[in-house]
Amino acid sequence: MELDGEGRAVVRPLLTDLYQVTMALGYWRAGRACEAAEFELFFRRCPFGGSFALAAGLRDCICFLRSFRLQDADVQFLASVLPPDTDPEFFEHLRALDCSGVTVRALPEGSLAFPGVPLLQVSGPLLLVQLLETPLLCLVSYASLVATNAARLRLIAGPDKRLLEMGLRRAQGPDGGFTASIYSYLGGFNSSSNTLSRQLRGVPVAGTLAHSFVTSFSGSEVPPDPMLAPASSEGPRVDLMASVNLWLKRVCIHLGLKVQEPHPGERAAFVAYALAFPRAFQGLLDSYSVRRSGLPNFLAVALALGELGYRAVGVRLDSGDLLQQAQEIRGIFRTVGAQFQVPWLESVPIAVSNNIDEKELARLAQKGSEVNIIGIGTSVVTCPKQPSMGCVYKLVSVGGQPRMKLTEDPEKQTLPGSKAAFRFLGSDGSFLLDLLQLAEEPPPKAGQELRVWPQGAQEPCTVKPAQVELLLRLCLQQGQLCEPLPSLEESRTFAQQSLSRLNPAHKQLQSPTVYPVALSEKLRALVDNLSAGGPL
Amino acid sequence: MELDGEGRAVVRPLLTDLYQVTMALGYWRAGRACEAAEFELFFRRCPFGGSFALAAGLRDCICFLRSFRLQDADVQFLASVLPPDTDPEFFEHLRALDCSGVTVRALPEGSLAFPGVPLLQVSGPLLLVQLLETPLLCLVSYASLVATNAARLRLIAGPDKRLLEMGLRRAQGPDGGFTASIYSYLGGFNSSSNTLSRQLRGVPVAGTLAHSFVTSFSGSEVPPDPMLAPASSEGPRVDLMASVNLWLKRVCIHLGLKVQEPHPGERAAFVAYALAFPRAFQGLLDSYSVRRSGLPNFLAVALALGELGYRAVGVRLDSGDLLQQAQEIRGIFRTVGAQFQVPWLESVPIAVSNNIDEKELARLAQKGSEVNIIGIGTSVVTCPKQPSMGCVYKLVSVGGQPRMKLTEDPEKQTLPGSKAAFRFLGSDGSFLLDLLQLAEEPPPKAGQELRVWPQGAQEPCTVKPAQVELLLRLCLQQGQLCEPLPSLEESRTFAQQSLSRLNPAHKQLQSPTVYPVALSEKLRALVDNLSAGGPL
Repeated sequence: MELDGEGRAVVRPLLTDLYQVTMALGYWRAGRACEAAEFELFFRRCPFGGSFALAAGLRDCICFLRSFRLQDADVQFLASVLPPDTDPEFFEHLRALDCSGVTVRALPEGSLAFPGVPLLQVSGPLLLVQLLETPLLCLVSYASLVATNAARLRLIAGPDKRLLEMGLRRAQGPDGGFTASIYSYLGGFNSSSNTLSRQLRGVPVAGTLAHSFVTSFSGSEVPPDPMLAPASSEGPRVDLMASVNLWLKRVCIHLGLKVQEPHPGERAAFVAYALAFPRAFQGLLDSYSVRRSGLPNFLAVALALGELGYRAVGVRLDSGDLLQQAQEIRGIFRTVGAQFQVPWLESVPIAVSNNIDEKELARLAQKGSEVNIIGIGTSVVTCPKQPSMGCVYKLVSVGGQPRMKLTEDPEKQTLPGSKAAFRFLGSDGSFLLDLLQLAEEPPPKAGQELRVWPQGAQEPCTVKPAQVELLLRLCLQQGQLCEPLPSLEESRTFAQQSLSRLNPAHKQLQSPTVYPVALSEKLRALVDNLSAGGPL
Repeated sequence: MELDGEGRAVVRPLLTDLYQVTMALGYWRAGRACEAAEFELFFRRCPFGGSFALAAGLRDCICFLRSFRLQDADVQFLASVLPPDTDPEFFEHLRALDCSGVTVRALPEGSLAFPGVPLLQVSGPLLLVQLLETPLLCLVSYASLVATNAARLRLIAGPDKRLLEMGLRRAQGPDGGFTASIYSYLGGFNSSSNTLSRQLRGVPVAGTLAHSFVTSFSGSEVPPDPMLAPASSEGPRVDLMASVNLWLKRVCIHLGLKVQEPHPGERAAFVAYALAFPRAFQGLLDSYSVRRSGLPNFLAVALALGELGYRAVGVRLDSGDLLQQAQEIRGIFRTVGAQFQVPWLESVPIAVSNNIDEKELARLAQKGSEVNIIGIGTSVVTCPKQPSMGCVYKLVSVGGQPRMKLTEDPEKQTLPGSKAAFRFLGSDGSFLLDLLQLAEEPPPKAGQELRVWPQGAQEPCTVKPAQVELLLRLCLQQGQLCEPLPSLEESRTFAQQSLSRLNPAHKQLQSPTVYPVALSEKLRALVDNLSAGGPL
């Protein structure tokens, strides 16, 4: 099963709120189980105080819907939590449910999404599309939240820094970590530490060694085979540890250190790692002391490898003032590179990590920073600024009639009716406004002036788009997939292209200009009519 | 497989950071794969600015360890990400790995846990126990975070309010929701909305109806069978809608409302729900207007049901000022109950929900509050005050020799050596202090004075425990389970008992007194010796 293949066996029909099941019985008992209904999944406010979100999780939703079936054991379980006199035919109905009558329109994965514009429109039999609510919210909300968070971090970091997601151990449960790895990549990260995300979804992965590897060596260990062949395979094998010890003396003299200062266990660990990965040696510098141990040990190993034609791939810092240390280390790489005539040394990438948040990221990404790779864990995967997206799934029509929640809390009112959504573009291709209208209205045309009602505004405005894009695409029609799902890579590219077409004023992370979402005159009239207690 | 049975198929060996795999190759290449090693999993600071945490996730860890095997496809995948010239024997080694050589000591599920005291001690072959790091952190950190968060919310709510976790749709991924449902119950919640948590782990579940159910009815629907038999089954069946309409008139007169004011669709929805669940009717009051529609419709249905011998189980509010509305509604229940001589009406439970956080919970739980059931979503499942626990997994010994990370960042230093942990109790059974000592030291004895070094203190202190409890229990010995795992219910009871023995000063949610964790003199001496660069 595709779901299992993607590691999502936990997303099963009963991962749902009990009230979906009790309502199912209510609908069935009222003879309404198969009435045609439509729900919309959307959010009311952009996360993190920003002015945009990225839509994500559609692929997971489609996989879930296509395999949706209640197993016999599930139905038996439900019988045990419902009243004992429940009509057995209800359970037969549940047993026969699948999504062959469900149609889904959606914002493509990686789209820019704005408040009130549906990420998903789900239509089908009332009982069934109600049952789907919780799992769909579960699959869309966090995926979109993480993708948006990653996009913000990418905006802060600028295009050149490499961003590594490394938050698996900090995530909210195993699947939280898996989801975060996939959707932080979609949002603009370069890679993840999470091996499973590569295996199942093709996310580029990265990783070398931890402090435990370093501290596990005392220096008294004897490697079974200390010999290393040159990169070219031409020439004799060399005892790497012996060569490192020679280089250590030269490096220590250059740095003004005693040769006893660098920790022998750390050096043994570096040599062990270099023997296993001569083409991918990275030094983790802060197990003991960066200046007095990690750095000279790294340099000795890198220079010994260099003699054999291998180039170290980097150093990593995980504590202290990361920016300041990176600047100092780059300086030392330059002087050591010059001293020993190894010009590549000065461009060895410097990777940093250690609870990096938006503020520290901005510091590390400032002009002149020598940091190349930034590993982010907690701040990307748990989205601490706002750990939940707050998506909702609301009934907009049943039996072809519009429905609206008219609660006294205006924030919680919904927009009734089956709708279409369009994005208006300026002549330069930038995004001007999103329009919601009733599905039955003719689509707006490029070059034609239109009167629309921006959300929250008391007055209409006129707008003339140079181009018009249809936002919601048919992706599941009566349970059948309409076109192949884009790859993660394609969605990632699409997300970055979309962001590049958004006015910078909307991309500001603090107090951005709100992107306008407007209603058509007809939709606005319907809202007014229903709000005034007109016929439903 | 037990894991599948518990919905955790996603927790597989490759749900790990890539560096665990690259280090595995490094250890193997250095001839150290099978050296005896021990890691400790612990946290450095209590979450949420509090002074305690609850240990949770052990059961999931044990399930993971007992089924730990790399599949052929996993090993082939790893071969594709490691250097092409990697010795095939390494992959044979990986293929043969299982946890038959792994021993785990742990704080029992639901224990009070404090900084530096291991939640898990994992010993076994170096390569393997290193590989286990990320999945174990993944399984313990969030479970413990949610359990602790739930315990804090329970402390705020007091013992009598019923707390319902309803955050599945707000959780960080599907498994985040599943984990939250289980461990918020462990931490002191009464129930969850999450059906799967009942099916797989026996968590009590609750749920009735949502606004979509209410708004799906216009009032023109004709129920296929509007007749309801009395609760006693004795007597004729009654047309419930007809009876409700009669009651509505009486209720409206009493409340001073016009009979046209209450929304007919809402009433039809309530009747439909009552027909399906006559013994479990709950009214969701705020789809239109609580006072003018939800409440009179609820009362009409509740009174009609009452005539047939059924008692409504409650009302729910999901917007507005929840406390104030609850007070008003209770008052109306009292007068209506008196007016129509239905005394049970005044004690109908009032349930509330709507983004309830610690502050709002305190308000709802204040003395005199008429709220009975409090549904909490985002604030319990995403732990917004601190969405990650920050557990770490650190090497403490290898080959029988203690290991320590001596980084220049004192916060990141570790405590070396294989350790035992004890809790000292006063004569009243309350918890005084936790002691960490070297495993080889004789256990402290009740009634004997002991000199210990509280963490962070410059001076030792003496302490005389009335009782001493061993904290870390052997739960997996060479891969074999040592005793049956406690049930979730047992762990929940244990957690509440443990909390009741903790001094209130440590349970304060703001600026609590820090609970002391101390080192034995020998452990302290070892730390000093290694910090001073003594032999490892």
